[in-house]
Amino acid sequence: MNTLLLDSDAVDAHARLPAVIDAVEDAFGAFERGTTQMPAKSYIDLPQYNGDFRSMPAYLDAGDWDAAGLKWVNVHPDNPVDHDLPTVLGTMIYSDPETAFPLAIMDGTTLTMKRTGAAAAVATDYLAREDASSLGILGAGVQSYTQLRAISEVREIDTVVVTDQDDERVTQFIEAFESDFDIRGGSISDAGHCDILSTVTPVETPIVGPEDVGDKTHINAIGADAEGKHELADELLEAARIVIDDHEQCTHSGEINVPYSEGVLTDSDIHGEIGELVVGSLEGRTDETGVTVFDSTGLAIQDVAAAHVVYENARGADDGYEFGMIEMA
Amino acid sequence: MNTLLLDSDAVDAHARLPAVIDAVEDAFGAFERGTTQMPAKSYIDLPQYNGDFRSMPAYLDAGDWDAAGLKWVNVHPDNPVDHDLPTVLGTMIYSDPETAFPLAIMDGTTLTMKRTGAAAAVATDYLAREDASSLGILGAGVQSYTQLRAISEVREIDTVVVTDQDDERVTQFIEAFESDFDIRGGSISDAGHCDILSTVTPVETPIVGPEDVGDKTHINAIGADAEGKHELADELLEAARIVIDDHEQCTHSGEINVPYSEGVLTDSDIHGEIGELVVGSLEGRTDETGVTVFDSTGLAIQDVAAAHVVYENARGADDGYEFGMIEMA
Repeated sequence: MNTLLLDSDAVDAHARLPAVIDAVEDAFGAFERGTTQMPAKSYIDLPQYNGDFRSMPAYLDAGDWDAAGLKWVNVHPDNPVDHDLPTVLGTMIYSDPETAFPLAIMDGTTLTMKRTGAAAAVATDYLAREDASSLGILGAGVQSYTQLRAISEVREIDTVVVTDQDDERVTQFIEAFESDFDIRGGSISDAGHCDILSTVTPVETPIVGPEDVGDKTHINAIGADAEGKHELADELLEAARIVIDDHEQCTHSGEINVPYSEGVLTDSDIHGEIGELVVGSLEGRTDETGVTVFDSTGLAIQDVAAAHVVYENARGADDGYEFGMIEMA
Repeated sequence: MNTLLLDSDAVDAHARLPAVIDAVEDAFGAFERGTTQMPAKSYIDLPQYNGDFRSMPAYLDAGDWDAAGLKWVNVHPDNPVDHDLPTVLGTMIYSDPETAFPLAIMDGTTLTMKRTGAAAAVATDYLAREDASSLGILGAGVQSYTQLRAISEVREIDTVVVTDQDDERVTQFIEAFESDFDIRGGSISDAGHCDILSTVTPVETPIVGPEDVGDKTHINAIGADAEGKHELADELLEAARIVIDDHEQCTHSGEINVPYSEGVLTDSDIHGEIGELVVGSLEGRTDETGVTVFDSTGLAIQDVAAAHVVYENARGADDGYEFGMIEMA
């Protein structure tokens, strides 16, 4: 029995977005129904290297399938300049829950992009207008590419407006998608007046105010992933219907962490968790709903769900490198 | 830049015991000096499969070297009978602390045996008589082989007495070592009257009493790894000099967990942690010392220390399978 090794290209090939979106939706539902196990992330802080490690173990039982695994991931912001390496380098071990056999070990960085895009797509499906056709993208880094690809799986996007401080990144982003979409650069307000807006920046001072978005824009707030980070102005959040992925993570490191810690937002301002929308215990968008915000921090169960899709597809396609980690007696 | 994949044979070949013992000793010293980071183990319990997963991340700075990594390991007792798989299947990701690059992914099961044997060797070096030459082994499973190999690196062992309920395992154990040692089967008391005793059984009712050991026997209590397990009688522990690896782990799942939870043993009965012996802030055996007990639960820093040795040796020998996990831009 062998472990399947899947590099970033293999993960990219086998994390087909429609399937990953379905699996992540299943994971959110399982989380709400209480059929998941997700210990708190463990952190190792290494200030001497300006970096940290996080371990994210999880199990989920989606009813038709279950899955277990662990993502070992980091944030080392000096990597690109000092070491010609990405800031984030993830490794995922995907295990059979019944025996703990390591079915696959795969690149966790590509996996993270896919499952994050998928989460935005799930939220968009419940919270954006049915007829949404325009998408604004704030921040044109690697994660934004998956936002566009994933969200266009749940809404018929024709128009895209992208904005970034770095003109070159805007140009690259446009070039990547100009054959599939009516895509152009624009201001934050141009992007925010689309039917859907995904914000994917690391800012600590909000850059999107209430006047920058449409009356019924759905916003996927992706960028905030640590204490102190937020992209949306307090007044925008206060007026919006806020859906979170997990109360603990969002109030500590998500888009709402700063106003929540300051008491500007309280639990009564939070509409609910995405899992409640998935299982149907809470309404998503209705005719009366104005601006909606999905606060996405990224859950370990999303990684496990996405890894499940990658593994099953790769096995089915006879792809990947088979490695005999354990000598069988 | 590639990740080195090391299977169980490679880990066995490159986890040379003298080096692993030194590295584990360094790790215990670093733990005492506070230059380690070791978040509590995270558990995922899966009663439906009679199994669990544990994630064990750690960082240690030993002064001359530092290392980071994570072991993902499990206990699935039904594996051997139901699935023809080992009960425990570990996978270790060994990472560069400076960049988080996954330097190696290796079999964690062999690694666990090596680092556990090494811990017993470190404790034996501080706690057994200088002239100790006989070793008793209680339980003749796979871990016991490494106990004998590791302990014979720190003391000139000539006589070995092994005992196990399963005669066949005793025979196999004797056959494995009869060319190197004067080795025979015997009773628990025969094994316990050696200068050193390693107990490696999963019992929940103690099987070694005060009358079963010599006046100055050093005992490595290896078997207890969960609440409710203990191998040594309370009276034996009460009379012994007890050294633990970690207070939190030992009082919850180590040899002392049952008497400690019942109040039979208290903190005043614990001589100290092995790291204190390593840094010299606490004495090991003196002329007056009688029976000593090392309560070994196994720390994540031991895994990282052993992985450091394996990786450095394997790289130096140009061994292992190079895998490009991440496509470099």
